[in-house]
Amino acid sequence: MSKIQMFEKPLGMRDSFPEVNEQKESIRSIARDFIRTKGYDFIKTPSVEYFETIGKASAIDESSLFKLVDNQGEMLVLRPDMTTPIARIAASKLLKEKNPLRLAYYADVFRAQQREGGRPAEFEQLGLELVGDFSPYADSEIIYTAIELLKALGVESFQITIGHAEILTAFLTNNTDNTKQVEMLRQLLVEKNLVGFSQKIESMNLLEEQKERLMKIINYTIESNKFMDFRQFLNDDQQYLIDQVEELQNLLEFQLNDFSIVSFDFSLASHMSYYTGMLFEIHAAGSGFSIGNGGRYDELFKKFDEKVGATGFGIRVDRLLEVLPKQIIKEKHTLLLFDKGSFSKANVLAEARRNASEYVTLQYIESVNDLEAFKQIFDEVVIVSEGGSLRE
Amino acid sequence: MSKIQMFEKPLGMRDSFPEVNEQKESIRSIARDFIRTKGYDFIKTPSVEYFETIGKASAIDESSLFKLVDNQGEMLVLRPDMTTPIARIAASKLLKEKNPLRLAYYADVFRAQQREGGRPAEFEQLGLELVGDFSPYADSEIIYTAIELLKALGVESFQITIGHAEILTAFLTNNTDNTKQVEMLRQLLVEKNLVGFSQKIESMNLLEEQKERLMKIINYTIESNKFMDFRQFLNDDQQYLIDQVEELQNLLEFQLNDFSIVSFDFSLASHMSYYTGMLFEIHAAGSGFSIGNGGRYDELFKKFDEKVGATGFGIRVDRLLEVLPKQIIKEKHTLLLFDKGSFSKANVLAEARRNASEYVTLQYIESVNDLEAFKQIFDEVVIVSEGGSLRE
Repeated sequence: MSKIQMFEKPLGMRDSFPEVNEQKESIRSIARDFIRTKGYDFIKTPSVEYFETIGKASAIDESSLFKLVDNQGEMLVLRPDMTTPIARIAASKLLKEKNPLRLAYYADVFRAQQREGGRPAEFEQLGLELVGDFSPYADSEIIYTAIELLKALGVESFQITIGHAEILTAFLTNNTDNTKQVEMLRQLLVEKNLVGFSQKIESMNLLEEQKERLMKIINYTIESNKFMDFRQFLNDDQQYLIDQVEELQNLLEFQLNDFSIVSFDFSLASHMSYYTGMLFEIHAAGSGFSIGNGGRYDELFKKFDEKVGATGFGIRVDRLLEVLPKQIIKEKHTLLLFDKGSFSKANVLAEARRNASEYVTLQYIESVNDLEAFKQIFDEVVIVSEGGSLRE
Repeated sequence: MSKIQMFEKPLGMRDSFPEVNEQKESIRSIARDFIRTKGYDFIKTPSVEYFETIGKASAIDESSLFKLVDNQGEMLVLRPDMTTPIARIAASKLLKEKNPLRLAYYADVFRAQQREGGRPAEFEQLGLELVGDFSPYADSEIIYTAIELLKALGVESFQITIGHAEILTAFLTNNTDNTKQVEMLRQLLVEKNLVGFSQKIESMNLLEEQKERLMKIINYTIESNKFMDFRQFLNDDQQYLIDQVEELQNLLEFQLNDFSIVSFDFSLASHMSYYTGMLFEIHAAGSGFSIGNGGRYDELFKKFDEKVGATGFGIRVDRLLEVLPKQIIKEKHTLLLFDKGSFSKANVLAEARRNASEYVTLQYIESVNDLEAFKQIFDEVVIVSEGGSLRE
């Protein structure tokens, strides 16, 4: 075999060993039960889609796509997100049956990585999409459901930061001279590179008053959450955007007992370029990365020939694992060792214990090489022999 | 956009809509609970592996592999089965911690398809592997667990056909002149092409008594399940293989109340070329295809530098769906429609009903385009207004 060792896995690909896997299963199960009570239906889409459709419509950078070629010579991609496949499925079929449409997923998504030791190239995402509703009620439902879901999962300390894609674009446009400048500044905000943002503004050929105002968007949010002051930075025909955010705030304030977990930050920008309205990020104590994000993406459906509003969020399960308290294993694992003469007796005993909710491994004793090491793994060991059962 | 339509999916790729998805979830959940009580741990492996390792070691034909190239220029594959990745993970890590090792999975596997309208290119497989045990107890555990699992899942009528890879090879070798002939005949049995098998024997340059005996392997199994008669076709140094099958039969007879669901057929051959000992197929009323299969594959671990016995099975979830009775949806789906003035009231009502196990969709009435059609979808519709709630 060439330079690849037999046990190696591709860059960014990871195994989930039993303990982590059970933690994920617990998240999956709690999330499914919770989300279904809110009227969302879970669906599953293929791991592989056409590059021409899902690959191009998704907001993921092309360099992060896993591409392959099928037997017909068509370019395929491993799905880089779930929002775009859900838009496909909604536009092609499900919206005709139910509109507004509420869909949920728990799925692996794929992002090719460039470097060793970095981020995972495949990870589980849990999320939901509300399609066919332009109203602020839909946005508040999405944010509120995200908050309640995190509580149901046991995430103790987290913060929701809400921004607005169109407000940011309007603000940057109002204070620069061309769309190229807007895009450069937006990109620095996506990267949360505030130093770079300040330096870029300094280096730009702009009026001093433009520069001063541009700096406000990052200083402003540090000083205060009272985003209503922000109205002064927008033109008259842009004021309705602030109305939207105010309405969203009112709805959330009604629903949340503790509104302090929500803050507003109009410098928030996402690498998911399809957001058109409110957008948000979730940060939790214990992870340096955002554990989830969401927003309104009305434009995406135009690619699928539908004029519908849509809003949703996704949570990364790998980052949830970082912030959740380590699960305590409750099940009792029992080892029943039998020899040639005690197979039938051991079987009967195993069934009885399994019926009493024990996890029972039934093992022919002669097949175990290192018996002492093997026994160590279990909570209880019983050696069944013809004479009787010996509890160790 | 080119010739691919916006809604198209790649060849063999399918969506799981909510109803089918819930049926699969129910299978997944029952199977997980059942399998864990038997002392098996669930794991998850990456969807993408190296071609050099997993691609080559798997028993799946290369033309069925989805191949892609990573940033480093290495050839990758979408996992075509779970047995080989589990062998990798067991050999590289888990066998050092627990030996014998019992692992289980519920995972998507990928097989590239050549034609439209054919088989799925991605499907869910549910299975388990017992690694580190050469004994017949391990084989009987695997077959018995498969049987009990199918019962737990509600499969009412199924048959297990047991063969033996080495017995078939010995029998074919004893009655032909070279390994090429053995392989040709074995391939026809893999395809279950009994007519082709007979014709091939006729056309072969063999003694009449060889031809007569070769035909026995297919006629024989039709006539009788008493495989002990089969001893006459094997040499003295091959008799131990029949001993193995007899021991397996004895163990299963002890465990099963109804042994009539098990039959033996030494013409059984698998496209999974790594089987070395007993192998079996599961057929159920309602599907023309086998819904699952399994066997002993001691040789596979040699590729991972381990000398351990291993046996396991996998069940195809898509075929399980074909044979299971259609699930009845038990949950009550309620629609609460609210207007601007009744948001808070509707929220309170929704929570109360969700606590009473209803699935409640909370919907702003003005966002619904076709109200009559939307209402039809739910079991109960309540219009909440400032004045009060109107049950429709």
